[in-house]
Amino acid sequence: MKKLGIIGGGQLGKMTILEARKMDIYTCVLTEEHPSPASEISNEYIIGSLHDEDKIREISEKCDVLTYEIEHINVEVLKELEAKGKKIFPSSRVIEIIQDKSKQKELLDEKNIPTSKWKKVTKDNLEELKKEFGFPVVQKSCKGGYDGRGVFILKDESDIEKMIQGDSFFEEFIECDKEIAVMVARNFNGDIATYPVVEMVFDDKTNICDTVVAPARITEDQCKEAKKLALQCVEALDGVGIFGVEMFLTKEGKILINEVAPRPHNSGHYTIEACKTSQYEQFIRAVLNYSLGNCDLLSPACMVNILGEDGYKGKVKVIGMDEMMSVDGAYLHLYGKKDTKPFRKMGHITVLSDSEEEACKLALKAREHLKIISE
Amino acid sequence: MKKLGIIGGGQLGKMTILEARKMDIYTCVLTEEHPSPASEISNEYIIGSLHDEDKIREISEKCDVLTYEIEHINVEVLKELEAKGKKIFPSSRVIEIIQDKSKQKELLDEKNIPTSKWKKVTKDNLEELKKEFGFPVVQKSCKGGYDGRGVFILKDESDIEKMIQGDSFFEEFIECDKEIAVMVARNFNGDIATYPVVEMVFDDKTNICDTVVAPARITEDQCKEAKKLALQCVEALDGVGIFGVEMFLTKEGKILINEVAPRPHNSGHYTIEACKTSQYEQFIRAVLNYSLGNCDLLSPACMVNILGEDGYKGKVKVIGMDEMMSVDGAYLHLYGKKDTKPFRKMGHITVLSDSEEEACKLALKAREHLKIISE
Repeated sequence: MKKLGIIGGGQLGKMTILEARKMDIYTCVLTEEHPSPASEISNEYIIGSLHDEDKIREISEKCDVLTYEIEHINVEVLKELEAKGKKIFPSSRVIEIIQDKSKQKELLDEKNIPTSKWKKVTKDNLEELKKEFGFPVVQKSCKGGYDGRGVFILKDESDIEKMIQGDSFFEEFIECDKEIAVMVARNFNGDIATYPVVEMVFDDKTNICDTVVAPARITEDQCKEAKKLALQCVEALDGVGIFGVEMFLTKEGKILINEVAPRPHNSGHYTIEACKTSQYEQFIRAVLNYSLGNCDLLSPACMVNILGEDGYKGKVKVIGMDEMMSVDGAYLHLYGKKDTKPFRKMGHITVLSDSEEEACKLALKAREHLKIISE
Repeated sequence: MKKLGIIGGGQLGKMTILEARKMDIYTCVLTEEHPSPASEISNEYIIGSLHDEDKIREISEKCDVLTYEIEHINVEVLKELEAKGKKIFPSSRVIEIIQDKSKQKELLDEKNIPTSKWKKVTKDNLEELKKEFGFPVVQKSCKGGYDGRGVFILKDESDIEKMIQGDSFFEEFIECDKEIAVMVARNFNGDIATYPVVEMVFDDKTNICDTVVAPARITEDQCKEAKKLALQCVEALDGVGIFGVEMFLTKEGKILINEVAPRPHNSGHYTIEACKTSQYEQFIRAVLNYSLGNCDLLSPACMVNILGEDGYKGKVKVIGMDEMMSVDGAYLHLYGKKDTKPFRKMGHITVLSDSEEEACKLALKAREHLKIISE
């Protein structure tokens, strides 16, 4: 049996390891702290920074295949390990491109995959960019963005002073009909599996993806186009693993790639209950180069994130558990984080129902009941 | 959050804990050895005999609710703990009845729930029983039976000398059209949830339930009757928890209760992938007195057990993993037992497909690929 190393100790690692345990696949995680969602259930764990070269070398030695559940990790050492023949999926080249959103944009342009117009901010092109893009305009950090951080919308001239510092680019503000996403898995043999297209709804306040609806309520042609583009992205990256491809469906009905995550993705949580193969099992199959699983949707579903309540910080207290479970078709995932803070991702709820509308209604109802506060 | 104690360290415990981990529910198991399938992933474990009163008192103190994943445990101490106000589900009365199959039969007769004719074997009634039941006839141990052990079919007079020793009863041999089963969950509030009726196919050689097909290919009226009887059994027991109710569908189309298991059951493994709520999550909801989940079947399914290959004993080696995974809609569960022996339950495969027939075909194909041998 192959041993799997996972860099990162968060909830994506945890949900991956739950699937690994099911199949008795051995895992070791590199985690910044213990207990963490993933380290608590892994066969083995190493505590250390995800940027610590020695720790990454250490986990690499313990495993047959190395992967990660977060892309903000040390890439240089991965290159060194790959050169020595280590199996790392997705490859260091993929992370390098993904870590720098401007490189992602360059790749998309180079491969003629539709994405919104963009241009790097330099020391002296701000006036030119303002003229070219107008307001509103989106500014994105090249590196380090996560869960809505590193993205800033300049509504007008007055926002200029609040701009993100460091390397960044301007991106055309897209009048979106919907944001949509597709999970794509690809193994080393080149087999590909594509999940249904879903809708992502973002919270206005936190800019965190808040609600995911499966399947997306779009036309069949739009579905086909979205899946085709998602596939092109993964092939452009020559990616092995699982990928969350986020897209804009514009008011004009055009689909543009927003960005790609090289790992299980919030927009794929619903697959645990709603699809034949969960994104986490699929992730394991892909990186260990097993045959990929069937992505069929078994039921319409809606997933809502559970964030730490505003105003509470400290040791977790869960309230409303029974009320939440009384909602028909609602399934609770709590990540096991020991401390809460406002808007921290603490868990999610997936509801299966006969229609997307009903699933959404029930998911919001379930979430109203469940609150993560501090003791 | 309530803490759950589980007596027993086997695969039923493991699959329960995987669901508990999903919801971040704390578990402690009493296990006869470590590592065991359940102890490896539990928050906490105690090593000891399942008959050791002190160990059961110890686990009881650590948890809000105590349950078990196997019924062959010490009952006397459970009675003592219940008297002190401890929450134990299903109750000691339920285990006491279930542990002694003749008591089960008595309860069924008392409540007028149809079951096959039976009579206790005493020192001097053998000749009388032979006349009354004829051959073939089934002999069952009152206590200690498990996975086909404790059941003996006397084909003719010559089998008399091979009879099971100890307390036992004779049971009419039923000409079965099918063996069927229903999982029923019931919480302390008295809420009830009933899963679809499934078919169980037993291996002739080992008498272990080998294949489970969901839904059962029987008439709608038979389905209704089976669910009604399963429910009556659980209510007769005043059971809180999850129960596997095994039944005979006779050649004449009559349904008779065979026996009841007071825990998750092999015939309910398919629910992990095929139903909205898995039997394991349902088990947790029931014993912690949460609202019960929806039991809807999402897809036709077939589950096959994976037994240790005949002729191999010792440290586990798994072969054919990729070939098995290449079967469409097939999902692997390996229990993580470190040692194999012939016919030991090592895992199972569930296949989801468009029809029961297709699911069965694919499940057998998947199992042909995967073998558990020794190193």
